[in-house]
Amino acid sequence: MRLDLSIPHLRAAYLDGTLTPAQLITQLHAAMLAEDAALQRNIWIRRLTLDEMLAYASALEGRDPHSLPLYGIPFAIKDNIDLAGIPTTAACPDYAYTPEVSAVVVQRLIAAGAIPVGKTNLDQFATGLVGVRSPFGACRNSIHPDYVSGGSSAGSAVSVGLGLASFSLGTDTAGSGRVPAMLNNLVGLKPSCGRLPTTGVIPACRSIDAVSVFALTAGDAAAVLAAAQGEDAGDSYSRSFGPYGHNFGAANSFRFGVPRAQDLEFHGNPDGPAQFASAVQHLIDLGGTPVSVDLSPFRAVATLLYEGPWVAERYQAIRAFIEKSPGSLHPVTRAITEKGIAITAPDTFAALYKLKDMERLTRPVWDGIDLLVTPTASTAYKIAEVEADPIRLNSNLGHYTNFVNLLDLAAVAVPTGFMGESMDHMPWGITLVAPAGQDLPLLDLAARLHARAVPIVGATRHAPHRLPGATPDTKPFPSGLVQVAVCGAHLSGLPLNGQLTQRGAQLLRATKSAPFYKFVALPGGPPKRPGMVRVAEGGGAIALEIWTLPASEFGSFVAGIPAPLGIGTVLLEDGSAVQGFVCEHHALLNAEDITHLGGWRAYLAQQS
Amino acid sequence: MRLDLSIPHLRAAYLDGTLTPAQLITQLHAAMLAEDAALQRNIWIRRLTLDEMLAYASALEGRDPHSLPLYGIPFAIKDNIDLAGIPTTAACPDYAYTPEVSAVVVQRLIAAGAIPVGKTNLDQFATGLVGVRSPFGACRNSIHPDYVSGGSSAGSAVSVGLGLASFSLGTDTAGSGRVPAMLNNLVGLKPSCGRLPTTGVIPACRSIDAVSVFALTAGDAAAVLAAAQGEDAGDSYSRSFGPYGHNFGAANSFRFGVPRAQDLEFHGNPDGPAQFASAVQHLIDLGGTPVSVDLSPFRAVATLLYEGPWVAERYQAIRAFIEKSPGSLHPVTRAITEKGIAITAPDTFAALYKLKDMERLTRPVWDGIDLLVTPTASTAYKIAEVEADPIRLNSNLGHYTNFVNLLDLAAVAVPTGFMGESMDHMPWGITLVAPAGQDLPLLDLAARLHARAVPIVGATRHAPHRLPGATPDTKPFPSGLVQVAVCGAHLSGLPLNGQLTQRGAQLLRATKSAPFYKFVALPGGPPKRPGMVRVAEGGGAIALEIWTLPASEFGSFVAGIPAPLGIGTVLLEDGSAVQGFVCEHHALLNAEDITHLGGWRAYLAQQS
Repeated sequence: MRLDLSIPHLRAAYLDGTLTPAQLITQLHAAMLAEDAALQRNIWIRRLTLDEMLAYASALEGRDPHSLPLYGIPFAIKDNIDLAGIPTTAACPDYAYTPEVSAVVVQRLIAAGAIPVGKTNLDQFATGLVGVRSPFGACRNSIHPDYVSGGSSAGSAVSVGLGLASFSLGTDTAGSGRVPAMLNNLVGLKPSCGRLPTTGVIPACRSIDAVSVFALTAGDAAAVLAAAQGEDAGDSYSRSFGPYGHNFGAANSFRFGVPRAQDLEFHGNPDGPAQFASAVQHLIDLGGTPVSVDLSPFRAVATLLYEGPWVAERYQAIRAFIEKSPGSLHPVTRAITEKGIAITAPDTFAALYKLKDMERLTRPVWDGIDLLVTPTASTAYKIAEVEADPIRLNSNLGHYTNFVNLLDLAAVAVPTGFMGESMDHMPWGITLVAPAGQDLPLLDLAARLHARAVPIVGATRHAPHRLPGATPDTKPFPSGLVQVAVCGAHLSGLPLNGQLTQRGAQLLRATKSAPFYKFVALPGGPPKRPGMVRVAEGGGAIALEIWTLPASEFGSFVAGIPAPLGIGTVLLEDGSAVQGFVCEHHALLNAEDITHLGGWRAYLAQQS
Repeated sequence: MRLDLSIPHLRAAYLDGTLTPAQLITQLHAAMLAEDAALQRNIWIRRLTLDEMLAYASALEGRDPHSLPLYGIPFAIKDNIDLAGIPTTAACPDYAYTPEVSAVVVQRLIAAGAIPVGKTNLDQFATGLVGVRSPFGACRNSIHPDYVSGGSSAGSAVSVGLGLASFSLGTDTAGSGRVPAMLNNLVGLKPSCGRLPTTGVIPACRSIDAVSVFALTAGDAAAVLAAAQGEDAGDSYSRSFGPYGHNFGAANSFRFGVPRAQDLEFHGNPDGPAQFASAVQHLIDLGGTPVSVDLSPFRAVATLLYEGPWVAERYQAIRAFIEKSPGSLHPVTRAITEKGIAITAPDTFAALYKLKDMERLTRPVWDGIDLLVTPTASTAYKIAEVEADPIRLNSNLGHYTNFVNLLDLAAVAVPTGFMGESMDHMPWGITLVAPAGQDLPLLDLAARLHARAVPIVGATRHAPHRLPGATPDTKPFPSGLVQVAVCGAHLSGLPLNGQLTQRGAQLLRATKSAPFYKFVALPGGPPKRPGMVRVAEGGGAIALEIWTLPASEFGSFVAGIPAPLGIGTVLLEDGSAVQGFVCEHHALLNAEDITHLGGWRAYLAQQS
């Protein structure tokens, strides 16, 4: 039985004290050795030693698991992303260097409590969708080792599929974060470009590169995104997005684009049409309305990516190296990359104009749909097939992925089924695509689709997305709704509750805060209002209500809150955190401490 | 005395019946002949004949001047912008073609009532800032004929300066819509790129080209922008912007960036420093706070424009032509343009990365200021000087303009003074710059600055921006404020007035509606509310208050209005219209007709 490394599963064990990070790492290391012994899949370029992993685990000793969202969560890193002190090779040994600092996303994940376990194999310089273009050996699929893992983020996907990491980082320029997700039965998040900064990542096409996330569930991917996202001064392409997209996932009523029949291409995969139809039916069952979409402008963009000037970005990224040691490159990678130098600036601008024209043609499509749905990849190939026909079959795998980054879209690849005997029961899946910024609504819908469609995750037998408490109805991560914790005059039936209900807010549940808050009755009013102040000692658990309200309404709600109150983060008794009312500390001076009462209703009862 | 062609002046004459378009065109044609006789300035490549102009004028016969915002307003067109039936040359005779349809902006202006009067001389293919790189002769300045007109939109500026057109269209990639504005004592609007579509315009650098407007006043430029702006399907770079920017112009309290002393360069112009200081003082007197800004990242972008790959866009724009007949080009234009073909795609992307880095460096600057202020050009050159040193002096003139389009900024060049005897009393001015979308706040401030700084416009003796009714306080065009008419519970002192004041709204004036409204007291409440319903008969004039509120707050204000009320257009007693409260007609059924009382306060007085 492979390990269940899903984040809620590990977190529950850490919070109830039945597991420590060091214990997990020891188990994980044993599992790695067992996989090695069973079959050499060429997953790792440099796995961390047990001691190296334990060093990260021991850094967590004495830390409160509540305080770190990824406390003790193991993750793998594609070897074009820096991890301090470990060589970065991009699968080109002659290119190797040892960085002194980790990539910014890696730094943020470690700061959130996550534990790196190794650097993974890839198509050299992230050029490819197959995982075989590597001097470290073709990376074998986690489900069926005769098949390609998909690439370029090959080992990142396989390591998660085998239960050797809870999640992994990949990169995705043309589909490298999505194709391997499908081929290994995983969720693959290709975030909006710039949402995860690329500082410390070797570029492929710098203007359209994205750091990507492979995860067992969409909820796990959302947790990783939350911990690692946001602008960084070192990456001029990095961007911050508001926390919420334009909601459609939770609405139970959404319109999704489906390519016309003539746009669908499965490259001879006999199971593709039925698999895609089945996935579309799942979305209809979830409340979606399919809308037929002409895929041709999207496909025209896809063609631009490899036939146009963007390949020159790959040349520019390693220019000094390739000019000095062209023989150091994998022959296929070299042939593709060297095309870049022959392209002229006028041709480059002509392609940029063409892209702009195609973007304009796709714009009205988005007026009619909330998201676009395509197969993630048309089919699955065996390693031997790709080695015999390396360029064409690689290109086939990118049929539905190549256009996404050029058009500034976000995408989530979701497993939706397994193919039949003739395809060796390999996994299959679709990708949900929407304009940049829609990452979280996409993940929300991905979670619900995943839970309906496929019970087990990766190459494990576990079904973490179907466990109680992780069902899609619980919405473990935000969609277009904000959760806000209220503790005073906004509680149900109290004077300011209308400020919530007027904004379409709904009561989610009653709960308590973590036992860290001083609770006071503020002077002034009416209405009389309390304040919650987090304190080092003398705090208690305070009765709360969690309300959800549309993100679009949240700004105006916040804008109406008078000093000394504000909206910050409130820790809940179950270790999670939501936005909620907080109070400036200075207000304690003239306020009555009512912490011992445990809540505002108890105070009001005492007053009346 | 040259003609006063300012738009409000002509419009008033048309509206009161003292002028017809045909009469104006006849006067204008005589003025053109008189200018020709006085001095050949090489303004026109193809002026329309009297008959051609009169044909446009006669198309207006029978139309209500009220119904067309540019009724009978004459305008000139840079000869890289198509006018149906007239050759477009881009100042390269061998390139000439005769378009069947006008450029989209020209179509829109003609549809709004404007009358084209000719195609103007330019630096060939819009490459240059001087107006001398033309086989049609160096265009002579309207103020002093020994001086360059500025370019590339040379004749467009000079024609307006001489009172031969009310406004003109130019194009602006590197400053071609701003430098000639300063040198001819005009307002030069370089709108946000894409705001005026380029369909039917010969590209220079298609990714950053803007159609620009030369006008006698900022108010006139705003009227032209309003009539011509908005997306067009033929131009994938075209964009729509909301009607209002983030207001700063009207606030009487704004922060403006001023380059540090070491960033200021006047290329030996002895009057530059004092002129710039004087302009800055005017802005301070208008309520602005100067903030010192490091101009170096902006200047680094400026350098990219001509030393980087964007010159390849100029090559791409005329590629087939230049490859077939390179000898047809002006030698300077050819030398510049042919550099483009030698640039590679990797170098192009490297420059795009550099631009992105510089853009990131400039981003924090905008957090601290509402707008940036620079000289429009450092100095003014004579034609003979430029002919002796054509590249360097041209480059000097773009010192402050080259970075604007690459950084996606909007700009308005404003006259602020005249230089001294050693500079032959040539005009001088500054440019107001802000992020894309801020065109109208920039124009608002430009109007107030212009009115303070310089009495006369162009080479005329007229001062249209100082006439009663066109003073900056009248705000002839929108800034960042919305006007909304209220008639009931939102009136000053009444229960819902806080919904306005909480949004920063201010009472502008009390007035009455046009006498077309039924006025009723609606059932329900509290608060008790009235409804205004426009009716064919039996209506009256209703007492109103006009409030201004920030556009950014208007959406939430509207969102809070319950049925049967809504926000629509309310006609005022003076014939103008503003947004305001309207009421659905069906609500009249159960409501008390109180039209005879003429207002809500009268009703309330009766009730109490």
